[in-house]
Amino acid sequence: PLRAKHDERSVVFADLTREEYVQVQQYMLKQKDLDISTKQLTKPWQNFLFLIDLSLPKKADALAYLDGKGAKPTREATVVVFFGAHSYIKEYVVGPLPNPTYHTDVTQERYKTDLPINARSVTVGEYALLFSFFGEHVFSKLKTLMKESFDVGGDKKLNAFEQMPRGVQSGDRKTWVSFFRDVSGMYIHPVGFEVQVNHESVNASQWKVEKLCYNGQYFDSVEDLKQKYEAGSIKKIVYKESEDYGSLKPRQKPQQIGPQMFHVDGKRYSVSNNHVLYLDWSFAFGLSSATGARVFDVRFKGERIIYELSVQEAMSVYGSVTPGMMMTKFLDSSIGIGRFAHELTRGVDCPYDATYIDTYRYIDVPTPVRFRNSICVFEHNLGQPLRRHFSDFFHNSYGGMVNSALVMRTITAIGNYDYMWDFIFYQSGSVEAKVHATGYISSSYLVDGNLKYGHQVADKVLGNIHTHFINFKVDLDVSGQRNFFQTKDMQYVNRSLPWMPSRYATVPELVEKDLKTEKEAALRYDTKTPRYLHIASNKTNRWGHQRSYRLQVFSFTGDHLPESQTDERSMSWARYKVAITKHKDLEQTSSSLYSQNDAWAPAVDFSKYIEDNESIENEDLVAWVTTGFLHIPHAEDIPNTVTVGNGGGVLLRPHNYFDEDPSIHSADAVYIAPG
Amino acid sequence: PLRAKHDERSVVFADLTREEYVQVQQYMLKQKDLDISTKQLTKPWQNFLFLIDLSLPKKADALAYLDGKGAKPTREATVVVFFGAHSYIKEYVVGPLPNPTYHTDVTQERYKTDLPINARSVTVGEYALLFSFFGEHVFSKLKTLMKESFDVGGDKKLNAFEQMPRGVQSGDRKTWVSFFRDVSGMYIHPVGFEVQVNHESVNASQWKVEKLCYNGQYFDSVEDLKQKYEAGSIKKIVYKESEDYGSLKPRQKPQQIGPQMFHVDGKRYSVSNNHVLYLDWSFAFGLSSATGARVFDVRFKGERIIYELSVQEAMSVYGSVTPGMMMTKFLDSSIGIGRFAHELTRGVDCPYDATYIDTYRYIDVPTPVRFRNSICVFEHNLGQPLRRHFSDFFHNSYGGMVNSALVMRTITAIGNYDYMWDFIFYQSGSVEAKVHATGYISSSYLVDGNLKYGHQVADKVLGNIHTHFINFKVDLDVSGQRNFFQTKDMQYVNRSLPWMPSRYATVPELVEKDLKTEKEAALRYDTKTPRYLHIASNKTNRWGHQRSYRLQVFSFTGDHLPESQTDERSMSWARYKVAITKHKDLEQTSSSLYSQNDAWAPAVDFSKYIEDNESIENEDLVAWVTTGFLHIPHAEDIPNTVTVGNGGGVLLRPHNYFDEDPSIHSADAVYIAPG
Ligand SMILES: [Ca+2]
Ligand SMILES: [Ca+2]
Ligand SMILES: [Ca+2]
Ligand SMILES: [Ca+2]
Ligand SMILES: [Cu+2]
Ligand SMILES: [Cu+2]
Repeated sequence: PLRAKHDERSVVFADLTREEYVQVQQYMLKQKDLDISTKQLTKPWQNFLFLIDLSLPKKADALAYLDGKGAKPTREATVVVFFGAHSYIKEYVVGPLPNPTYHTDVTQERYKTDLPINARSVTVGEYALLFSFFGEHVFSKLKTLMKESFDVGGDKKLNAFEQMPRGVQSGDRKTWVSFFRDVSGMYIHPVGFEVQVNHESVNASQWKVEKLCYNGQYFDSVEDLKQKYEAGSIKKIVYKESEDYGSLKPRQKPQQIGPQMFHVDGKRYSVSNNHVLYLDWSFAFGLSSATGARVFDVRFKGERIIYELSVQEAMSVYGSVTPGMMMTKFLDSSIGIGRFAHELTRGVDCPYDATYIDTYRYIDVPTPVRFRNSICVFEHNLGQPLRRHFSDFFHNSYGGMVNSALVMRTITAIGNYDYMWDFIFYQSGSVEAKVHATGYISSSYLVDGNLKYGHQVADKVLGNIHTHFINFKVDLDVSGQRNFFQTKDMQYVNRSLPWMPSRYATVPELVEKDLKTEKEAALRYDTKTPRYLHIASNKTNRWGHQRSYRLQVFSFTGDHLPESQTDERSMSWARYKVAITKHKDLEQTSSSLYSQNDAWAPAVDFSKYIEDNESIENEDLVAWVTTGFLHIPHAEDIPNTVTVGNGGGVLLRPHNYFDEDPSIHSADAVYIAPG
Repeated sequence: PLRAKHDERSVVFADLTREEYVQVQQYMLKQKDLDISTKQLTKPWQNFLFLIDLSLPKKADALAYLDGKGAKPTREATVVVFFGAHSYIKEYVVGPLPNPTYHTDVTQERYKTDLPINARSVTVGEYALLFSFFGEHVFSKLKTLMKESFDVGGDKKLNAFEQMPRGVQSGDRKTWVSFFRDVSGMYIHPVGFEVQVNHESVNASQWKVEKLCYNGQYFDSVEDLKQKYEAGSIKKIVYKESEDYGSLKPRQKPQQIGPQMFHVDGKRYSVSNNHVLYLDWSFAFGLSSATGARVFDVRFKGERIIYELSVQEAMSVYGSVTPGMMMTKFLDSSIGIGRFAHELTRGVDCPYDATYIDTYRYIDVPTPVRFRNSICVFEHNLGQPLRRHFSDFFHNSYGGMVNSALVMRTITAIGNYDYMWDFIFYQSGSVEAKVHATGYISSSYLVDGNLKYGHQVADKVLGNIHTHFINFKVDLDVSGQRNFFQTKDMQYVNRSLPWMPSRYATVPELVEKDLKTEKEAALRYDTKTPRYLHIASNKTNRWGHQRSYRLQVFSFTGDHLPESQTDERSMSWARYKVAITKHKDLEQTSSSLYSQNDAWAPAVDFSKYIEDNESIENEDLVAWVTTGFLHIPHAEDIPNTVTVGNGGGVLLRPHNYFDEDPSIHSADAVYIAPG
């Protein structure tokens, strides 16, 4: 039996429907002056409609509507067009849906700058040209080498994996492409051949090979390599069949099936549109093609606790002597995190019994695409008590309840890595955002000097050291929007014993602090920070304490890239374990679609949100939380990294928000009296 | 179908059976010269057989036997006798079981010191005397006050909860006893009355009241308090009925039952005696009355990885202005952690479907006691993939497997707190030791100045700030006993780009270090430590890397008590996040049964294990791991602290130990090809 009714107003946060994508697409095509193409293989020098995604309503408008004090906000879409013909990118807001009548260029409003064309993601159309380029200008000229070194020829080929950013300064689009064997799990089968292609011009006829690296040796041109190879003056790679260690095919037949979870008494949650009800919880959800999974308007017993909790960015910095990986810094939201939320496998990715939800996306495609079963929602019995106490002194009794919680999950397979994103709703009033990494590591060919950058994990293969940094946006609204950022910690103080004043004891004392400005509340990754971080209201609970939610961060990050690196600005959110900003509709994300390809002059530099050092007292606050882990690959990362131990997250816990633990009112509570 | 056979040799680690306890008890009673009593209410001035527990075999002997190279070690018991008549404590080894013929005094061998009688735990016999003492010397003299302030009289009483350590220097046994309402969850119902009793003498007739604290005011004697109370010259407490907020009785009737886990195809593990088989894993287990749960001889695919993984100590330091809690530092193993491993509730503490195991103990009892269903073992489906990858580039396919792992659990309710202890065995070759806290917080009466030490959580009740520090012993034997302690981390270095040598890039590099001595490898809690910690063999895996297990510590500890405090020595293990020592049979535990009550001159001072600064290169190494969390109580700790977010642990992960992820050979693997 559900406790509450679904709220249709949650659709203000719903992703566009298939029909809405089509409406927006058709509307844009009708704007003849824009001369836009939506064809899959649109050329870089043409104007390509790259992305259609929900344009989130302004928070004030959404809240007014949700709280019955305002009209339904106009439904709008964000449209990203790569204007190859004009060398710029534009973002439009298109509305009102479902029958658009306007498109507004919001590029300047959103980014305070123009977006140069080379800040764009590489499209399927550009990839197609790049592959032909390699065929024509590289492979076909190196037939002997390709055959002898890599057994390439006839229908045998190599696969490409690119490294990013694409150069060393703004405007660069000089991509090192590494080649891998054409086998399953190619990411751990590098062959020792990398080519840097200059594709700065939207005119593909001007593209050229800049450099080549073969077996750790560098060449200025294909001809240079070809000649030296044929002259025998370089160290050659001689093809050797390799084991199929990247395969995920089971090595054993299924035997006895393991334990399974069942909703034995029916589901205690319900999903309607993008609205979820679960015991005392309700929330809306969405999946941005760029940033991924997100929930909005999270309420417990009808009271809003979180306005937005969302994935922002997944970033990795790699180390290597090989050229591609040496400077690699992946910024996944530029490629699209939510974009790669594919179908979830029943019984593996989520329990068999989960609820699976389809999503629709429009990114780098000619028509909207349905992603079947790409979100799952399920209640999970964690196999442990949420709370319990056994008393054998004085009052014998036992009371407790099992920890059953709701999980909403997506898994995004962005190239080699699969990130599992969980939002978890506990009966004790906590919400957790968690990420785990699995899938294939990135690897490089094992050449001299490379063992300083990782461990060998297969024949001639190095698993390269790298960081995983993940950013979450946490817009808690604790008893309204006007909040404070407080820290709590302990310190030892000397106190004389009241009953023996000549004696001192060292006693832990509570230390509370209100941080007043954005700069004070930007907690840098390399500093000691207070142990308890709170978003607090100045409304108090029954005992006179400020109602608050605590952010408990679970993180094993490595070091952040030094700020001296010019591309660090594209990932400046990672300078902070937690940063608190005053909410602004125009500071919607900590990263952007353009961070990867113009990393040196990024459209969004998160540190700027803090630079104006606004007051954060009695304001609508947003916490930006960084988590992740340092990954030193090892043999057990082959074939896949396991989720166990490879993750992080943030737990949002009530702290004097309630007057008591709300789980005491759960119908799952168990009590045993003696006798 | 089990992969291996149970190994009966695991019984070298088995707890004593009921019969063995009786045999040892009877043997000790036959030693007439020792004049020992086993009666429950043995007086402090008599000689009391306090504890019988397994005496672990020497490691070399156990290994020789387990590996088929030696005879079965003699089975022996440790016996602890509190010799009240002689003012000392003795530890004996009694053997051979099952028919003891000898008892050897091992006190000096084990502790290099005598054990003074006041280092002993307070027994049921001493508590009985203390309760009569309070009745006779306190309550009966304060009838008016007790009635008016606490509604005590007739059959209405208060309950006592003591604070420790019991004084300020060695030999002290001056215990502040705090009084609480006689209701369920008394720990959160302090009444504002505390009495310090001096029970240093084993002769109870010499006990006396040292001080009293009533409503924050101190008095030198009962008479002093009585007189001032009656004269009306002090601030009085006027009894007020309080809400029953400590009750764990459900506030709602059961509604719809949540999801449940079932072994749908039978159990994939087996328990025989104290030996567990689970897929590729096998291990022995035991439960020490003092230190709690432990596993031994943990093997994966037949190869021993861990010799011992065990709970050592649970410590908490409290802050307050109230006298009892002001200096409270609980050291639970002195009271007995395993001692309080009570029956587990099906469906709450462990899944319904788990295997429940009885244990037997002999501690502060007249006869051995059976604890029904006090250990549970179950396989748990974590509801998430252990690994997975979806590929839509080049080779379309999906491979993955669900994360099903074996859990062995005990929950120990030591007074107010319930600690949940889990050992988890993953199919990827990892083992995790985890602890979570639940149950009642300790609290104090809310008097002036106390809000600096916590938050108010109920009417007139302060939840006091405190630390939780937990110590685990991790005796990994990585490919044999001779191991090294290695650290790995990253550092940024400037490297010129091989293809553009004038340009520099800042690249993360792997930093590996071998720590050579115990002092180097004692990683202090207040220092930055390398991110990866490894116990390594100099045997290498297929790729030439040293085989190792990594220790990944999950911890949210507060600050450790400054070493200037004289009782800090009793908890010196908490100085270190991780400390590595050379294995010694005589360094069996990091704490001792005598740490709590002689905290100033503890029988075991862990820091001494390190003081001789032995070489840890190519030696049998033991890692001592500290975890825990800072606890600033809040309203949601009422009635019980929840497990979510309140825990810590250590994950032992293979790192180049194997040649690939062993889970690739699991029969649970799933693969989906297109078509
Ligand atoms: Ca700002
Ligand atoms: Ca907010
Ligand atoms: Ca030593
Ligand atoms: Ca060892
Ligand atoms: Cu990684
Ligand atoms: Cu606590």
